[in-house]
Amino acid sequence: MSNRVVVLVSGGIDSATALAHAKNEGYDCFALSINYGQRHVCELKAAAAVTQQVGVIEHKVIDIDLTKIGGSALTDTDIAVPSEPIAGIPITYVPARNTIFLSIALGWAEVLDAQNIVIGVNAVDYSGYPDCRQAYIDAFENMANFATKAGVEGKHFKINTPLIDLTKSQIIQLGHSLHVDYSLTISCYDPDHHCKACGVCDSCRIRADGFRKANLADPTHYRDSQNT
Amino acid sequence: MSNRVVVLVSGGIDSATALAHAKNEGYDCFALSINYGQRHVCELKAAAAVTQQVGVIEHKVIDIDLTKIGGSALTDTDIAVPSEPIAGIPITYVPARNTIFLSIALGWAEVLDAQNIVIGVNAVDYSGYPDCRQAYIDAFENMANFATKAGVEGKHFKINTPLIDLTKSQIIQLGHSLHVDYSLTISCYDPDHHCKACGVCDSCRIRADGFRKANLADPTHYRDSQNT
Repeated sequence: MSNRVVVLVSGGIDSATALAHAKNEGYDCFALSINYGQRHVCELKAAAAVTQQVGVIEHKVIDIDLTKIGGSALTDTDIAVPSEPIAGIPITYVPARNTIFLSIALGWAEVLDAQNIVIGVNAVDYSGYPDCRQAYIDAFENMANFATKAGVEGKHFKINTPLIDLTKSQIIQLGHSLHVDYSLTISCYDPDHHCKACGVCDSCRIRADGFRKANLADPTHYRDSQNT
Repeated sequence: MSNRVVVLVSGGIDSATALAHAKNEGYDCFALSINYGQRHVCELKAAAAVTQQVGVIEHKVIDIDLTKIGGSALTDTDIAVPSEPIAGIPITYVPARNTIFLSIALGWAEVLDAQNIVIGVNAVDYSGYPDCRQAYIDAFENMANFATKAGVEGKHFKINTPLIDLTKSQIIQLGHSLHVDYSLTISCYDPDHHCKACGVCDSCRIRADGFRKANLADPTHYRDSQNT
């Protein structure tokens, strides 16, 4: 059985922690980032920095322009990123994003003869996102084993979600114990052109709260003095 | 319920027929083609011609460079397209291709509020491709309803495979009855720079045999005199 794993790395806290966790478990890590036309390239810079810090065999960036599809505040500049918490499924939900990302990861995993894929979804980041639930991950894994040559030949693809039941502060504590340098990561939905965080969007709030509850200093680079 | 449908259109016989079938059933058709770095752009030109002939609300082309992943004769120029029939899953199988394509279609369908997606997979074109089987389609559909906001809100996504049980000649007869101009389509895995077909690859063989069995003239543009 192959010791290789494909890890989706976004540049945020969760995927950085999931990558460090896979590395710590002894896997040969192949990191995959998707340049999907997100509002800023800060995520991709962060992904490159994180993969270098943790150490991977290869870091691949695949381009797919989801702004052509739109439908989300993250992929349509006509839709504003909200600065207040929102009920239900947020406007930052990108239609089918995790499905598209996992599908690309599946293709690469098959080429690499890797049977494991890691995605850093979790209950807090869920925030109402349907494609961060375990039921969704299970359905994707089932589909993946019908989709592929490897699946037909009896190899079983596994979609690993090591963080799915952890709170943000537990994730931060785990990553801290694995020496993840979170100053390299970015969570903000709306950073400035220096990649400094706004401090007010949903994602910034969850992140700041996570460091607070983990009793760890928040290394986030905020713009102005918005670090509350 | 929305009357919109997203149809994956590759430029080949099957997707042209599936598109004409959806149009004939009264759907508002949104055609999606993926520029995935296939060996030739002939497919995309054919897709544009076919969607124009059949008539769609919109034809969208999304770029994703699967040559960065490779692993197939269609996405890796170091792997030759075979000119003899092959047993098992062919080297022209592109890892997770239909999964990636359907995932993008799913994202667009959600933005369009379309609950139907059409893909022209069928038993003959299957040729050992795992992602052309009904069991795979069912697993994808199940996953799609966990993946999306629409699914969570109780709308049911349906992946339609109108051709899955048809032979190539039956598909051609169906399309013929729907006035599909097959001279616009291309099936060859290895066309020349004029987009003329080789006549010897697996896909050319299946296509030529289909016209023969349907008792219809083969309108394929072959290079030299390879039309046997």
